[in-house]
Amino acid sequence: MAGNHLTEVMGIVNGTTNYILTQMTENGMDYEEALAKATELGYAEADPTADVEGFDAGRKIAIMASIAFNSRVTFSQVYTEGITKITADDIRYAKEFGYVIKLLGVAKNTDSGIEVKVHPMLIEETHPLASVNDAFNAVFVHGDAMDDAMFMGRGAGQMPTASAVFGDILDVMRNLVYDCCGRIGCSCYKQLNVKNIGETSSKFFLRIQAEDRPGVLANIASVLGNNGVSIAQVVQKSRKGGLAELVIITDEVKESHFNDAMVVFKGMSVVKEISGFIRVY
Amino acid sequence: MAGNHLTEVMGIVNGTTNYILTQMTENGMDYEEALAKATELGYAEADPTADVEGFDAGRKIAIMASIAFNSRVTFSQVYTEGITKITADDIRYAKEFGYVIKLLGVAKNTDSGIEVKVHPMLIEETHPLASVNDAFNAVFVHGDAMDDAMFMGRGAGQMPTASAVFGDILDVMRNLVYDCCGRIGCSCYKQLNVKNIGETSSKFFLRIQAEDRPGVLANIASVLGNNGVSIAQVVQKSRKGGLAELVIITDEVKESHFNDAMVVFKGMSVVKEISGFIRVY
Repeated sequence: MAGNHLTEVMGIVNGTTNYILTQMTENGMDYEEALAKATELGYAEADPTADVEGFDAGRKIAIMASIAFNSRVTFSQVYTEGITKITADDIRYAKEFGYVIKLLGVAKNTDSGIEVKVHPMLIEETHPLASVNDAFNAVFVHGDAMDDAMFMGRGAGQMPTASAVFGDILDVMRNLVYDCCGRIGCSCYKQLNVKNIGETSSKFFLRIQAEDRPGVLANIASVLGNNGVSIAQVVQKSRKGGLAELVIITDEVKESHFNDAMVVFKGMSVVKEISGFIRVY
Repeated sequence: MAGNHLTEVMGIVNGTTNYILTQMTENGMDYEEALAKATELGYAEADPTADVEGFDAGRKIAIMASIAFNSRVTFSQVYTEGITKITADDIRYAKEFGYVIKLLGVAKNTDSGIEVKVHPMLIEETHPLASVNDAFNAVFVHGDAMDDAMFMGRGAGQMPTASAVFGDILDVMRNLVYDCCGRIGCSCYKQLNVKNIGETSSKFFLRIQAEDRPGVLANIASVLGNNGVSIAQVVQKSRKGGLAELVIITDEVKESHFNDAMVVFKGMSVVKEISGFIRVY
């Protein structure tokens, strides 16, 4: 890919969380049950924090962004959000809209700087990543000359891990034998700015529990509108206890503007709960 | 992948024919129309023979088999069959059974020798290769430690081709600069037998036009049975002119046995035409 200007690297880069989300999606398990099964199979470590909070994926996307964009990106610059808050309801509603939920690492090389994040995302069921299940990982790379490329393989389990480590050792051995260590050295010769999460833009999937009375949808929609958040799709459902559930997918919006709207919602008496928001690819 | 014993390499390795088949599948074009469009876009060369007859894919799968199985495989040992006989009817019937048609290169490393072929195949709509469309290529590799891996990218077009060539040149340049040419040399240190196509086994999708009268299906089924061809699925449709069309998917069968059955059909007066047979992955 050396002849390309790479503009995006993204994908599923943690096998443990992908296994957990696949179990939740295909077998209707809740998070705790799926985590227990992942631990039993040796995918999740005794302390699963680095996997389920997105730290492991964050370290990987930092390395990939550094190589792809020729500029050092460190883990501390990566915005990370894990899968511990994803519920069976989120997965069910996403499916109704034609999406599946995956933990994605996303790095973009924009004119105003590098964007690098790890968080759960809704991706369309027809996207090639939507069918990357269980402990499989897959990475998409976009370059100006080559267009899109994808690489997929198992990202957890003792034999696939051993296979990857052995490949690296053999590569080092070949370099030693031919005395060409450093043949491909550090390529971070640029010093690009890494954007703060608030400066980046996303589409959001948002679930709100509100009082079920006339004018509430208009009320909520106007808060979003006043903060520059435009609505792409909305579904309203009645729930028990005089509550209405609003499920909203927004157009792309600057994250700080979206957060401003969430702050307003928290102060409104008609809004009983922000049940969750998940970005949309 | 150096730590693995690789048992299979397969995939879509020709962008031009994949573009043509995608146009036929998605836009209902016939073969000639899709070929003309591929030529217009610069995917197909003035003489498209090497692409559409599977020769280009055959050369690629010979190289990939040699590297994967550590034994020299030459183009002359590859069974090749192109896409020129694929019809709109084949594609439509395949879809009814839940399949799409792709030109696949398949190389297997079996205990009794190497199997290496290029031919059109029906693959299930849910298989990751089914959504590899237009000028995209993708290769699956299966190893004993790593399990499955897939690599996907554009396989035709001026910029993607230039990108790949530039990458190779840069690799040679690095080897020159570090004086380590030959770092990864020829790895064909085994001398494995390459099987004849007749010795290999496949599932087949078969379309036959026969006289529409009682006992014909039983007649045809018994010819298949006598030659060791077991039927997995069959659909019979009435057609104009007193003909019945039989669409059959077989279980896996030795190719020579399947061919024996075809020879018997050609000598039967009730069989008016063998409209085509395509292998099933």
